[in-house]
Amino acid sequence: MTSLSNVPYDSLTIGQTARYSRRVEERDITLFAAVSGDVNPVHMDADFAAASPFKERIAHGMLTGAFISAALALELPGPGSVYLSQSLRFTAPVKIDDTVTVTLEVIEKIDKGRKVTLACHAHNQEGTLVVEGEAQVIAPKRSVTLPRPPLPDISIR
Amino acid sequence: MTSLSNVPYDSLTIGQTARYSRRVEERDITLFAAVSGDVNPVHMDADFAAASPFKERIAHGMLTGAFISAALALELPGPGSVYLSQSLRFTAPVKIDDTVTVTLEVIEKIDKGRKVTLACHAHNQEGTLVVEGEAQVIAPKRSVTLPRPPLPDISIR
Repeated sequence: MTSLSNVPYDSLTIGQTARYSRRVEERDITLFAAVSGDVNPVHMDADFAAASPFKERIAHGMLTGAFISAALALELPGPGSVYLSQSLRFTAPVKIDDTVTVTLEVIEKIDKGRKVTLACHAHNQEGTLVVEGEAQVIAPKRSVTLPRPPLPDISIR
Repeated sequence: MTSLSNVPYDSLTIGQTARYSRRVEERDITLFAAVSGDVNPVHMDADFAAASPFKERIAHGMLTGAFISAALALELPGPGSVYLSQSLRFTAPVKIDDTVTVTLEVIEKIDKGRKVTLACHAHNQEGTLVVEGEAQVIAPKRSVTLPRPPLPDISIR
């Protein structure tokens, strides 16, 4: 997709859903460590992680939080939304090469202030729930379609 | 610091605090876009952002969520903690060159399951609250001190 578009407040309906999927590569865990500063060895060190309850390197839980925030910003309601709050419950680990699919569902609209509550669920490729929670945003007033900025080109030395 | 150490459950006290600071550089916003996929132009495009209510490019709200998760993973309780849940309320935008300081405070201990609730506050360098919320973790059973894995070396083309 070369453009981004939104769903303005008046067009949002209770029960409306959107999906957003990302495959978690080893480099994403490295990038998330770099940007957050979180070098916890359960994410960074295969030997350490092998001796942990998770048995192998796992992604930072908040990486799935980042996917949920991306789904809100890009898909539903999309560009022009203002993020008010998010709850996250971490229910299962995400591992390298997992594909995480975020599903958003509009569950409440509050006309005053254009506030919208969305249920957020993230599942892995086996259908296991990895994160669930709720988001509240101010939905955009007007419909917009924008050129989609390119993903930055990153290299890890 | 070249090592990471934790505070095991039995050593945690109500009211105990820890801090974790990160300066947000332009590259961090670019990296967060790459890892989340969130290329919303309010983060990526200076001209678009200038016309937004924020007047300039802002960091992804969930970047501060990532700093809170890093504070929990590295500082309090630190390595060996298991993340159960997080709430986040976004109260002010974070801009390029802001320094975000996360403060964690232990507010509840539940012996069954070693569950600990921490109040989480993130302020910018001017003392403005940017994010607040609560985290729940399973605290580690045993004290550990580990070599701190190096931050990865990233370049943006």
